[in-house]
Amino acid sequence: MATTRFHDDSPDVDVLYGDLAAADLQPLWTQHGLLPRAPDRLSPHIWRWKTLRDLAERSGDLVGIDRGGDRRVLSLTHPDLGGLPFATHTLWGGVQFLGGGELAPAHRHTPAALRFVLEGSGVWTLVNGDPIHMAPGDLVLTPSWTWHEHHNPGTEPMIWFDGLDVPLVRNLDAVFFEPGGEEPAGYEPARASRSEHHYGSAGLLPADESVIEDPASGRFSRLLAYRWAAVDAALSRLIESTGERAASVRYADPATGKDIMPTLRAEMHRVLAGHRTRAVRKTGSGIWVVHRGSGTTVIDGRRFDWTAGDMFVTPSWAVVDHEAADDADLFVVSDWPALEALGLARSE
Amino acid sequence: MATTRFHDDSPDVDVLYGDLAAADLQPLWTQHGLLPRAPDRLSPHIWRWKTLRDLAERSGDLVGIDRGGDRRVLSLTHPDLGGLPFATHTLWGGVQFLGGGELAPAHRHTPAALRFVLEGSGVWTLVNGDPIHMAPGDLVLTPSWTWHEHHNPGTEPMIWFDGLDVPLVRNLDAVFFEPGGEEPAGYEPARASRSEHHYGSAGLLPADESVIEDPASGRFSRLLAYRWAAVDAALSRLIESTGERAASVRYADPATGKDIMPTLRAEMHRVLAGHRTRAVRKTGSGIWVVHRGSGTTVIDGRRFDWTAGDMFVTPSWAVVDHEAADDADLFVVSDWPALEALGLARSE
Amino acid sequence: MATTRFHDDSPDVDVLYGDLAAADLQPLWTQHGLLPRAPDRLSPHIWRWKTLRDLAERSGDLVGIDRGGDRRVLSLTHPDLGGLPFATHTLWGGVQFLGGGELAPAHRHTPAALRFVLEGSGVWTLVNGDPIHMAPGDLVLTPSWTWHEHHNPGTEPMIWFDGLDVPLVRNLDAVFFEPGGEEPAGYEPARASRSEHHYGSAGLLPADESVIEDPASGRFSRLLAYRWAAVDAALSRLIESTGERAASVRYADPATGKDIMPTLRAEMHRVLAGHRTRAVRKTGSGIWVVHRGSGTTVIDGRRFDWTAGDMFVTPSWAVVDHEAADDADLFVVSDWPALEALGLARSE
Amino acid sequence: MATTRFHDDSPDVDVLYGDLAAADLQPLWTQHGLLPRAPDRLSPHIWRWKTLRDLAERSGDLVGIDRGGDRRVLSLTHPDLGGLPFATHTLWGGVQFLGGGELAPAHRHTPAALRFVLEGSGVWTLVNGDPIHMAPGDLVLTPSWTWHEHHNPGTEPMIWFDGLDVPLVRNLDAVFFEPGGEEPAGYEPARASRSEHHYGSAGLLPADESVIEDPASGRFSRLLAYRWAAVDAALSRLIESTGERAASVRYADPATGKDIMPTLRAEMHRVLAGHRTRAVRKTGSGIWVVHRGSGTTVIDGRRFDWTAGDMFVTPSWAVVDHEAADDADLFVVSDWPALEALGLARSE
Repeated sequence: MATTRFHDDSPDVDVLYGDLAAADLQPLWTQHGLLPRAPDRLSPHIWRWKTLRDLAERSGDLVGIDRGGDRRVLSLTHPDLGGLPFATHTLWGGVQFLGGGELAPAHRHTPAALRFVLEGSGVWTLVNGDPIHMAPGDLVLTPSWTWHEHHNPGTEPMIWFDGLDVPLVRNLDAVFFEPGGEEPAGYEPARASRSEHHYGSAGLLPADESVIEDPASGRFSRLLAYRWAAVDAALSRLIESTGERAASVRYADPATGKDIMPTLRAEMHRVLAGHRTRAVRKTGSGIWVVHRGSGTTVIDGRRFDWTAGDMFVTPSWAVVDHEAADDADLFVVSDWPALEALGLARSE
Repeated sequence: MATTRFHDDSPDVDVLYGDLAAADLQPLWTQHGLLPRAPDRLSPHIWRWKTLRDLAERSGDLVGIDRGGDRRVLSLTHPDLGGLPFATHTLWGGVQFLGGGELAPAHRHTPAALRFVLEGSGVWTLVNGDPIHMAPGDLVLTPSWTWHEHHNPGTEPMIWFDGLDVPLVRNLDAVFFEPGGEEPAGYEPARASRSEHHYGSAGLLPADESVIEDPASGRFSRLLAYRWAAVDAALSRLIESTGERAASVRYADPATGKDIMPTLRAEMHRVLAGHRTRAVRKTGSGIWVVHRGSGTTVIDGRRFDWTAGDMFVTPSWAVVDHEAADDADLFVVSDWPALEALGLARSE
Repeated sequence: MATTRFHDDSPDVDVLYGDLAAADLQPLWTQHGLLPRAPDRLSPHIWRWKTLRDLAERSGDLVGIDRGGDRRVLSLTHPDLGGLPFATHTLWGGVQFLGGGELAPAHRHTPAALRFVLEGSGVWTLVNGDPIHMAPGDLVLTPSWTWHEHHNPGTEPMIWFDGLDVPLVRNLDAVFFEPGGEEPAGYEPARASRSEHHYGSAGLLPADESVIEDPASGRFSRLLAYRWAAVDAALSRLIESTGERAASVRYADPATGKDIMPTLRAEMHRVLAGHRTRAVRKTGSGIWVVHRGSGTTVIDGRRFDWTAGDMFVTPSWAVVDHEAADDADLFVVSDWPALEALGLARSE
Repeated sequence: MATTRFHDDSPDVDVLYGDLAAADLQPLWTQHGLLPRAPDRLSPHIWRWKTLRDLAERSGDLVGIDRGGDRRVLSLTHPDLGGLPFATHTLWGGVQFLGGGELAPAHRHTPAALRFVLEGSGVWTLVNGDPIHMAPGDLVLTPSWTWHEHHNPGTEPMIWFDGLDVPLVRNLDAVFFEPGGEEPAGYEPARASRSEHHYGSAGLLPADESVIEDPASGRFSRLLAYRWAAVDAALSRLIESTGERAASVRYADPATGKDIMPTLRAEMHRVLAGHRTRAVRKTGSGIWVVHRGSGTTVIDGRRFDWTAGDMFVTPSWAVVDHEAADDADLFVVSDWPALEALGLARSE
């Protein structure tokens, strides 16, 4: 049987194309690049801590926190994304600066957020009224649709990294946003948050979960704060136990082992001085924040040297390895759980 | 404590903004509309069967099937999406025309596809070599990364609706595409596909699934064809059993009950003449294809009259109800499973 | 270091043993056989249809249905179980006889039951009021804690096989029983049960399950009747598709693919004349009912010849294969899902 | 229609009954008590620490550890169970005594075991070679089919409570047992076990689980030791956070939140002095071990006073509440997960 018929480009074809456009239709056969052989939308990119810190501080001096958006955030803007204030096609990354005595008022939104603290001390983030203390190296979660506000009752400013799934949620047209009331919440500074009181012991869960208010409805991690000391110790123990020169931990819901958010995975990778990790390639993008040490990451053959505070993105399907000059800890947030849930996770 | 500090718009601020731009950063506080109060990216839209059919036929006359893209498809192009050939922000919809004696050659891609047959007969779609016969009202699946090709050995053309998750998968930068070999596959036209042989009986599964080749790796429906006669009968029985004037069935994996794809839900809705359904509102978008009958759908207060073959989209969070003039059957494909998996499903 | 200390059997030991007994304690070290090397509690056993049928009929003549227990059932009594009326250590099997014009009144219990029809016609089983017609080769479920009663409005008696998890549920001390009211339920004989109306199409589920009353609360199969014609066709198609000389189907919940009950698996095995199946060995016991044909099953080296209607049990961890003289269909109910759920499933 | 037929007890009936017995059949209608209205197999029972400790010590003096069974265990023998060495119909409980310098050699079995330490120090339990240190109040797991041996290199004896699912696994005829080799394993006493190194941080999991040997294959808890200090702290924090006078924690797999074994749940209940808990009733039985304090438990209306070290069982469906005289901690092991998995869990 003949597999195709063939016609010259006749004037009729031009008329057809005009009629298609008028009818809100497009011919598929003139589309190219709609289905590339492999992911191709993004190149790697790096932002330097020195610049980020300097500009965050200047923003703190010049710009009040109430000038729109309720937050003083510098958004990592990937040059491949046409001016959108996004770090990758799915992830939003930023540097937030909260000066001494400042308060970022309450709001909530369906995009999920995490905060990885870079510098400063004494800030409290309230998540549905649960006051969570923040210190460098801590990871603090404000899950989807939870009220959250940031209080800095001290005198020292704090700078943290914000990671959100805003582009992903926008692409799904599922953003909801609600501003909070005028009055900031009162709170009792506590040694640990309720979330940590309830879910802070490995393998010990409240026997009767009905006594517990779960701000995240079981879809997000019940634990809202992961302390640096615990992460540091866990990495040390893994290295001690396996005898390897690298180890990594995944931040998880202690009640299910699932990722912190259905859209976001967070990990901390430790690479000891002189070690180079095995190259891996995965679908999905990530934002890496250097927490400690210095070294080099090779992404699809391009070298990126980094030191503490630098941030870089790895694109979908890029080949990635890390080499540490000094003992290094790299925090990373990625969209892997979304790809996994949708049957699009692939790695090699 | 003072909640904010305030500075006039000084020249320093302009310098800051310039420095931010130079550093691939943007101030969040000047962004507006990034986080709308509710989903707002799309309006409803309708395409008419008369136009679709006419243009599909003219394309069949004028354009060979091998002119790029391997397929003769007219893509529903929503005017709100800036010229992209997409029906909604997550869904790709199209009308495919395969003339008598034509063959659309094999390829595979990570976006998942479904075919809902509108007109014609005698076409075979091969999914990983499994020949599936197509007839009007049938739903045929070509899951992610399965080889598929369409053979029309007869003389009559066939027109079907194509539904894919291309925009969603592209937004996740997880598109892979691979063209097939030059030679079309041979096949033995069978009364039913292997997929139907293995999974075509309600509640009866192969006891030893290791004897079965599963093209979809368990992430997609093991059943690849849903026959109109079965759908019609199921709807009739539901209406008979419940005594309601409307009923709907969801196409599901018979081995798990999960949606046909992790990204796509398909349903058939029957509304009897004169009945108006309860209004519902959900996150996620849908493409509706009128299979039979006529009536009116009200979407966020706008009325859309339709008859068989018309196609329309419902945006995320739109309020939707249907009223049938004649007994009507409406096929719909939506992105609901993706929203559910990512914690973004909301309805009222 | 010395691994043990040793003392002669002194009179003190006798005193100790006496004091232990008085304190409701036993020394573990005098227990033998508590932990055998492998499952050892049961031998295989067979019951003959000729005998079963004859005795069932005589019971029908001599014994009214209301003489205790509400049911005229002959319980398969395995000689290894110390006189308990059980077929295996976990499964209860029986032959039930319901004469023309008889009614077995309503009750409910936590043990789950299935009925596999051997002979007769015209009986209706009501499950929570849903009338289910019964015919030879059909499998009908009465899940845990559902009301059920059996009506025989015709003149012909019916004989069916009853399979229950009574010993298992008794061993867990979780039996609840409740007799129904005095009055039998009225019902409208329908072409198909509500359960079949709602869940009788492969891969087509009610889109809105809230319209459906689910008697089984999602823990048991939503489909309550599996018709012989469907089972027969599914087996034929599997054999046609795989080209093998044997095939088997598992009865499953069409909405989840899970076993019909959390404690019970049911399967139908077809072996074509002359074929001998691969030997398998599994934990868990089964009751086999020969539906059609004749042949031989070898169980741990012992041969059991069978013809239609015979019933035999296979013990835990026995090596089992079947050889068919004529084309044969064997129904089996086993406790496999319980073993799997409890981490005790093992096979080779 | 007539619901039943009726015949006098004729001589024919006696003949029938004889023929049934000869055919390994029993009439259901003469069985009574097979299906009781509610669980009824067991009464509550208590064992006193004073007695248990005294007899354990005497056994340590008189009986070498190698006299059969490899273990010096006193089995709680419920008087309702016909002499079987079981604490309830599903649970095996015992008191194990390991003298200074003794070694209980390696074996493995499918029944799962837990050890709750009552007295002593310095013992190491090796689970698949992973050395786990034991101290009072610790819970140590030896999951199904894991090799385990107990070393007491010190001079002080240790006494612990053993909880196993032996009766349950025996009732399923799924016991496998294998003795270890002659040579005890060498080991490196470590500050913490590998299991604790890998899974001992709340919400922090190894990112690459392939580097981890999992002795339990994911069916049992990956964490094998739960330290008293952590349990104590978790209970204190729960009470501080909820303001209640009682709290309880469930021991769980930190990687999934599931129970420690598919058959066993373990919990620690704290009741502050003077508080009486709400009465609850559940299917399934439990063995309670008083870890600290004194008080009274009311079981189906019977009062049982207790002090530290006492052990008592609560039968299936018994109404249970606890009242503390002093601040009290009660450890409990139950078969709840088995009932839940099999659809037999019920509570009120």
